[in-house]
Amino acid sequence: MIILGVDPGLTRCGVGVIEAGAPRRLSFIHVDVVRSDPHMSQDLRLLTIYNGIAAKLDEFIPDTVSIERVFAQENRNTVLGTAQAAGVAMLAAAQRGIPVALHTPTESKLAITGNGKAQKVQMERMVARLLNLNAPPTPADAADALAIAICHALRPAGALEGGEREQHLTKAQRQWAQAAQHASRRGGVRRGM
Amino acid sequence: MIILGVDPGLTRCGVGVIEAGAPRRLSFIHVDVVRSDPHMSQDLRLLTIYNGIAAKLDEFIPDTVSIERVFAQENRNTVLGTAQAAGVAMLAAAQRGIPVALHTPTESKLAITGNGKAQKVQMERMVARLLNLNAPPTPADAADALAIAICHALRPAGALEGGEREQHLTKAQRQWAQAAQHASRRGGVRRGM
Repeated sequence: MIILGVDPGLTRCGVGVIEAGAPRRLSFIHVDVVRSDPHMSQDLRLLTIYNGIAAKLDEFIPDTVSIERVFAQENRNTVLGTAQAAGVAMLAAAQRGIPVALHTPTESKLAITGNGKAQKVQMERMVARLLNLNAPPTPADAADALAIAICHALRPAGALEGGEREQHLTKAQRQWAQAAQHASRRGGVRRGM
Repeated sequence: MIILGVDPGLTRCGVGVIEAGAPRRLSFIHVDVVRSDPHMSQDLRLLTIYNGIAAKLDEFIPDTVSIERVFAQENRNTVLGTAQAAGVAMLAAAQRGIPVALHTPTESKLAITGNGKAQKVQMERMVARLLNLNAPPTPADAADALAIAICHALRPAGALEGGEREQHLTKAQRQWAQAAQHASRRGGVRRGM
């Protein structure tokens, strides 16, 4: 199963591609950062990001696109641009009939390190180790894109958004469900919103 | 000059088309609301909105697309979906080489009624009057889409975003520049962000 991860951004949008085989058996395929010039108008920047992601989808033909979820509460100046970059990535996938999964940074940390509050350096080390890379990928957006792809591959079996079917879960599944529930309460963009 | 206005939204996205001829001479061409099913996943909803707007662009071939600006501070649950709907509208225009203008609700009220804090009913009445309609268009998203198109047509000559060249402005131009400056300070999505 080929998974293409997207760390959305208008200036730098990370794209990471992995193959997920037997349980916890992952291979690195590709990583890149799609960029748009901050001096261009918003519409042309979105077109640049969209074209860059569409080209990656056509090159690697992933089975799933895994995108980092954006939250309205992240009250930075860039949050709407980030949401729009995630939006055109979703659009490019939907136009090709590729399913989209959204995962929060907490879910990603939990799936990769077992700790939902893991430090950045710990995450980067684990991404490198899981993909058999000699060093963590740079820049940060590239590592984050691979992390969000790995997150989708390693999410606990039966992990569900919104805390459905919370009985009979393993500890990891329970933590995951809690993280997803927390994400829902924060009002982020989620499937079916 | 054909102007297509967009009142962005994920559930209901208003689209209004007008023709702007001699100064303040406007004609109504078309109004519609593109809808997506709240039960669908986010990526398919964005695809539905994108396809709906793309079809309108191909039908009416506007010279400019005028879109209501979205602000991060509007901390509703829907703000990111609204920003993403605006994003795919911008993308559809950019793919066709059609220039995009973003206008705030305050700019729209100022251009149409002369009062940046005009009530909704006053705006709807003026939209109907300016377009020679017997009654205000419904639903509200349709009226808002026409308003944002009219706003672009009636914006004061020399109106500039970000308060550039504030000397030598008429009173209307000054109010406009102030509204644009206020919008910049609020950190909304703006051209060149």
